[in-house]
Amino acid sequence: MPLVVVGSVALDSVRTPTESRDNVLGGSATYFAYAASFFTPVHLVSAVGEDWPAEHTRLLAARQIDTTGLQVVPGAKTFRWTGKYLPNMNDRETLDVQLNVFDRFDPVLPEEVTRCRYLFLANGPPAIQMRVLDQCKGADLRVADTMDLYIRGAADELAELLRRIDGLVLNDSEAKLLTGDENLVRAGHKVREMGPRFVVIKKGEHGAMFFSQHETYVLPAFPTPNVVDPTGAGDSFGGGMMGYLAEQGNVDPKTLKKAMAYGTLAASFTVEAFSLDRLQQIQRADLDRRMEEYKRMLSF
Amino acid sequence: MPLVVVGSVALDSVRTPTESRDNVLGGSATYFAYAASFFTPVHLVSAVGEDWPAEHTRLLAARQIDTTGLQVVPGAKTFRWTGKYLPNMNDRETLDVQLNVFDRFDPVLPEEVTRCRYLFLANGPPAIQMRVLDQCKGADLRVADTMDLYIRGAADELAELLRRIDGLVLNDSEAKLLTGDENLVRAGHKVREMGPRFVVIKKGEHGAMFFSQHETYVLPAFPTPNVVDPTGAGDSFGGGMMGYLAEQGNVDPKTLKKAMAYGTLAASFTVEAFSLDRLQQIQRADLDRRMEEYKRMLSF
Repeated sequence: MPLVVVGSVALDSVRTPTESRDNVLGGSATYFAYAASFFTPVHLVSAVGEDWPAEHTRLLAARQIDTTGLQVVPGAKTFRWTGKYLPNMNDRETLDVQLNVFDRFDPVLPEEVTRCRYLFLANGPPAIQMRVLDQCKGADLRVADTMDLYIRGAADELAELLRRIDGLVLNDSEAKLLTGDENLVRAGHKVREMGPRFVVIKKGEHGAMFFSQHETYVLPAFPTPNVVDPTGAGDSFGGGMMGYLAEQGNVDPKTLKKAMAYGTLAASFTVEAFSLDRLQQIQRADLDRRMEEYKRMLSF
Repeated sequence: MPLVVVGSVALDSVRTPTESRDNVLGGSATYFAYAASFFTPVHLVSAVGEDWPAEHTRLLAARQIDTTGLQVVPGAKTFRWTGKYLPNMNDRETLDVQLNVFDRFDPVLPEEVTRCRYLFLANGPPAIQMRVLDQCKGADLRVADTMDLYIRGAADELAELLRRIDGLVLNDSEAKLLTGDENLVRAGHKVREMGPRFVVIKKGEHGAMFFSQHETYVLPAFPTPNVVDPTGAGDSFGGGMMGYLAEQGNVDPKTLKKAMAYGTLAASFTVEAFSLDRLQQIQRADLDRRMEEYKRMLSF
């Protein structure tokens, strides 16, 4: 079952305690789409500027990622993000953001894409996320990500969005901010009571939590000695999760849990190199091999 | 198989964002012993002062905890700790410490206790921990805990201790401090290379990691909406883990992993109330029921 993702495509500059990269391929929708493409065809909807290297489009298209919805906007520049990781490689500072083409991004989905039944709204203003929902009326599964910027600055729109989606994916600090509750188990359920049927709280190196009416669980991150660049881990998590759900074509509790596990493993590969470098080296079979290790790790 | 624990018994004063308790039963060896007593008989070796309420000894003795090794030192006062939890209920500040009787604690183990084959050295100066090792020459399994104070202030003795024990249990921040490595997977193995056959890194609300020559794994904490007081969670973890190992009488990889799970669950009960209040309400069957839930949570 094909999957649509709407969100940012970016050129990232990343500083870690030991290495740096400038203007590498990044963006939430990029990482999401690439991770999801191990499981299912993906339609990527985003915008870039005239400075966008065509090789990046080719890299995406070489997988089963349809870039028809990736607009190259004349006269505009691509979104740029510069960030720096602290020595723990889990916390980071944003050093610079240039929204550029995203300053006025108003996605118009190609006709074929609007008929998609699996939809992921990566980080973006909730008003824009809702305009995408308006275009995809027939979607069976609508999942969104959000962030502190919109929790603080667009609370009403976010509240409306939460009533219109099936699932929300967010970070631990964002879940605390949104609910005012420091206990993540309570916070997860409070977010769920705002609308979505299920909520996923991402905890970075500590894994992810899942909340639905009848289920509460935690899956740890896959233990990785070699964290090179955590950028895109959360988005790869979302891509692995949604990709597997779309592939399976259902969202029963068992499939959702396995999707959480695939999300965890997609993220574990992403952090092993800068940008999409590690994901480009692997195949679905590598994810499946790591899945066997991960299952062994969690059985006793 | 009986189990010995040597460590602190204390009167704790605890401030949480919503509630406080003064002079309640605490101490690392206390929590450890109580959690372990669900699995096996425990010999508790520690010291208290004349101010020690006899009811606390009765509370321990009412379970299978032998308090012959709990000296009541004339003229001395019991160890007291006062701490305050931050709103996240994971980080805390120590407001006051009165070592009192522990200022010159030099444990002399009763003859019967020295023949024990399972030994846990709760937090304490490594030189003292080694004096206990000297008395228990026949132990099959010697596991110790340590803390930042000794990593910083008694590095040589700690290095010697590490070469003489089978396992070390420590917090994530302590593992980073001891190794200078911010990546916990690498840090765990670096600690292991300092001597112990296995290392357990406790991550508080994020669970625990295990390291041996051939194994690296993470188990998440049991998700608890109701964290009342995290004091003693790490010690209860140790007690549940060692208690199960002593009960089983072996330390093969499968038993160790299940022991890690029991430690996780013992801790999950401890945090649901102040002091030992929650552990006093439960039976082994409650741990086993939660174990079934925990296993279900981690299978997919």
